[in-house]
Amino acid sequence: MSKQQVGVIGLAVMGRNLALNIESRGYSVSVFNRSSEKTETMLKEAEGKNVVGTYSIEEFVASLETPRKILLMVQAGYPTDATIEQLLPHLEKGDILIDGGNTFFEDTRRRNKDLAESGIHFIGTGVSGGEEGALKGPSIMPGGQKEAYDLVEPILKDISAKVNGDACCTYIGPNGAGHYVKMVHNGIEYGDMQLICESYHLMRDVLGLSAQELHETFKEWNEGELDSYLIEITKDIFTKIDDETGKPMVDVILDTAGQKGTGKWTSQSALDLGVPLSIITESVFSRFISAMKDERVKASKILSGPNTTFDGDKKEFVEKIRKALYLSKICSYAQGFAQMKVASEEYDWNLNLGNISMIFRGGCIIRARFLQNIKEAYDRDANLTNLLLDPYFKEIVESYQEAARDVVATAVKLGIPVPGLSSALAYYDSYRTETLPANLLQAQRDYFGAHTYQRIDKEGTFHTNWMEK
Amino acid sequence: MSKQQVGVIGLAVMGRNLALNIESRGYSVSVFNRSSEKTETMLKEAEGKNVVGTYSIEEFVASLETPRKILLMVQAGYPTDATIEQLLPHLEKGDILIDGGNTFFEDTRRRNKDLAESGIHFIGTGVSGGEEGALKGPSIMPGGQKEAYDLVEPILKDISAKVNGDACCTYIGPNGAGHYVKMVHNGIEYGDMQLICESYHLMRDVLGLSAQELHETFKEWNEGELDSYLIEITKDIFTKIDDETGKPMVDVILDTAGQKGTGKWTSQSALDLGVPLSIITESVFSRFISAMKDERVKASKILSGPNTTFDGDKKEFVEKIRKALYLSKICSYAQGFAQMKVASEEYDWNLNLGNISMIFRGGCIIRARFLQNIKEAYDRDANLTNLLLDPYFKEIVESYQEAARDVVATAVKLGIPVPGLSSALAYYDSYRTETLPANLLQAQRDYFGAHTYQRIDKEGTFHTNWMEK
Repeated sequence: MSKQQVGVIGLAVMGRNLALNIESRGYSVSVFNRSSEKTETMLKEAEGKNVVGTYSIEEFVASLETPRKILLMVQAGYPTDATIEQLLPHLEKGDILIDGGNTFFEDTRRRNKDLAESGIHFIGTGVSGGEEGALKGPSIMPGGQKEAYDLVEPILKDISAKVNGDACCTYIGPNGAGHYVKMVHNGIEYGDMQLICESYHLMRDVLGLSAQELHETFKEWNEGELDSYLIEITKDIFTKIDDETGKPMVDVILDTAGQKGTGKWTSQSALDLGVPLSIITESVFSRFISAMKDERVKASKILSGPNTTFDGDKKEFVEKIRKALYLSKICSYAQGFAQMKVASEEYDWNLNLGNISMIFRGGCIIRARFLQNIKEAYDRDANLTNLLLDPYFKEIVESYQEAARDVVATAVKLGIPVPGLSSALAYYDSYRTETLPANLLQAQRDYFGAHTYQRIDKEGTFHTNWMEK
Repeated sequence: MSKQQVGVIGLAVMGRNLALNIESRGYSVSVFNRSSEKTETMLKEAEGKNVVGTYSIEEFVASLETPRKILLMVQAGYPTDATIEQLLPHLEKGDILIDGGNTFFEDTRRRNKDLAESGIHFIGTGVSGGEEGALKGPSIMPGGQKEAYDLVEPILKDISAKVNGDACCTYIGPNGAGHYVKMVHNGIEYGDMQLICESYHLMRDVLGLSAQELHETFKEWNEGELDSYLIEITKDIFTKIDDETGKPMVDVILDTAGQKGTGKWTSQSALDLGVPLSIITESVFSRFISAMKDERVKASKILSGPNTTFDGDKKEFVEKIRKALYLSKICSYAQGFAQMKVASEEYDWNLNLGNISMIFRGGCIIRARFLQNIKEAYDRDANLTNLLLDPYFKEIVESYQEAARDVVATAVKLGIPVPGLSSALAYYDSYRTETLPANLLQAQRDYFGAHTYQRIDKEGTFHTNWMEK
């Protein structure tokens, strides 16, 4: 009996779609799922295709060519460990496990290390693009042993999205690097969505735009430098009508955001690494506040806001919001990419940020025209400290700042919360300020805790007896 | 030979001062330090006092009355574990270990559980007040077995700060509760310091106030509702002159803030608990940016700001800054206390937030007149969901918001970073908004990931096929 080229364990929607994607590129695939119903459903869907169902781990492993290439698409956390445990006795040295789940990067580091002791390669790979991307071509961020990656690269590149012929898949780095980059990708996605929502909030509640007008605005934005998947689907969302009520769908959806934790992980990692990641973190906190619906409804009846209305030119203000959104998006990516740079040093990953921006251009949720500009920034300077220092971004941010300041000032005066837009400006202004007020903070720390300080005029650490007159 | 009532291990400044504080209240104290020099130095300092030096763990343990009451003042983390390990063989059931270090609350939870199996009580206690507080009376936040706390309560209350005769020490809750509350105290301290620094930044760089004028301003502020230890020492800091240069001390200190991680922990815990803690988190990120001094100096030469100057009334603006500071401080405490409420439910601690605000009134770094108002808010409603909903705070925030909005809008237009002040307003405005824009965010999530959403008009979770026309 002939053996299959690739194995996929876990046939929920992402695993199933990736298996079909792999098969569609000319590879034979063995599939396995803990409960056999999903396997049978999948085999019916895949009738006539090069997909073989197996009903035990032994049968599954035995059905694969060596070195085996096994894609794990089970739930992150304990289920992944349990599946690896079951597989291990049946594997041979040189076999390659690929974890395509939304795994915390520290788990991937641990598994990569543990499995290496048994001679098994472990590739933790980010896969972004949702259900549709999994089927038609996601963005793929694999991390692990380079020699193992080389063996699976043709498959991963084949199934990935393409932009101008370039596969949205590149080797990210050792051990947890792939899942780390996927985590930051998701954090950036949180930031993008929050900034779009704040823009929408202003246009809905300050300018009173209708769903149709919002559709037209986002359509226009999507034809310019904001061109991206998230702006595109936002444009589409505003045209969807609820069958039951005849209202725009968006108006019948409850304003309580869910989340699966990758944004939170990104913020927690930034805090560990000492990297300012304010925009994404404000986005995570905003999801938290949105989820406190009952409390907000109660508070809205108790706490009053300002008694001011907007009296400017609506059309001009929409254009200012567009500029504020783009400026803030740039600041958010500057923070996210700076975090990857620091993580790369911390974990010794040697990340290539230019290549990473390339594979973000297609397939994934944050795909956008402006990732080409980020790629070009790293082409100009592979060691760029911060995207804001690149000439392209510097020029945009400098010329859009007046509009962004006007939008944030107006929102603040009118009582519309814009935590993302305002933290972007605060970041820009902090980053470009030679002398921040932290000298006072160091004096305070030295006063009450003898924590010492540095001086502007000479090297060393100093302590003052502040209470002495 | 007579035995001592209390033992102190670890004679760095905090341990030494606490030992002297305990002795000064009439207790006999045994001390031990890993290196004997510190013990000898301390004994010289404590000549004629009721302090006995010991030179081995055995001797130290043997010198104490049972049940033994041992205060651990060693470095948090591994050194604490190592010290406990050394003590354990010599302890008896019912002995009480009190960890007064800046320990991560999860470590305290673990140690409390592990030691309980050996019949040893473990009290993890926050101690705030710096060196001076340790000697003269700190704020004390003990967590652990209630029956063990009862045995040490007289000592802890005796050595704590007093406000109107009330000891700044109260039983916080089981296992890690004391260290958790100390962590949030420190996070709040980060927020307070950041908000003061932003106010200073505006007065220094926008209004051009001199150190003497700043001193007078903070002096005036300290006589009103902002009355607090941090405002008081800030007032004093501006009068300190550098001997070498003759300049105000604050002007020769480098603007790079250090930190020891408790602010970061607070933010990371808030992220885990799903609590919006934006002001403290922005404060942590601001310390990170301040530490990127070289990068900022470089960026300041590349990235330009707005070409606008302040042309309002300086004196009026100072008063607006005062109002913005107080409003933001209230929002920051509202966030911190909301976090403690959620943590209390998550970890089953049954925290009494009114009592906690009482012990913050004296001894600790965040001590302030307005903690009396917080205490009164919890007197009015022990289950208060959010401080902003209390009549006192509601009235302040509502009447100060116009000034705060003006300050933030002005700072944003002038390019002065105010991440703390602006996140406070964003929090206030989010919290009092019935309908946030997260309906769009849920539509986006459902569009690309089939994450489902809730509706405003009926129960259940729903999914839309957005791509279907």
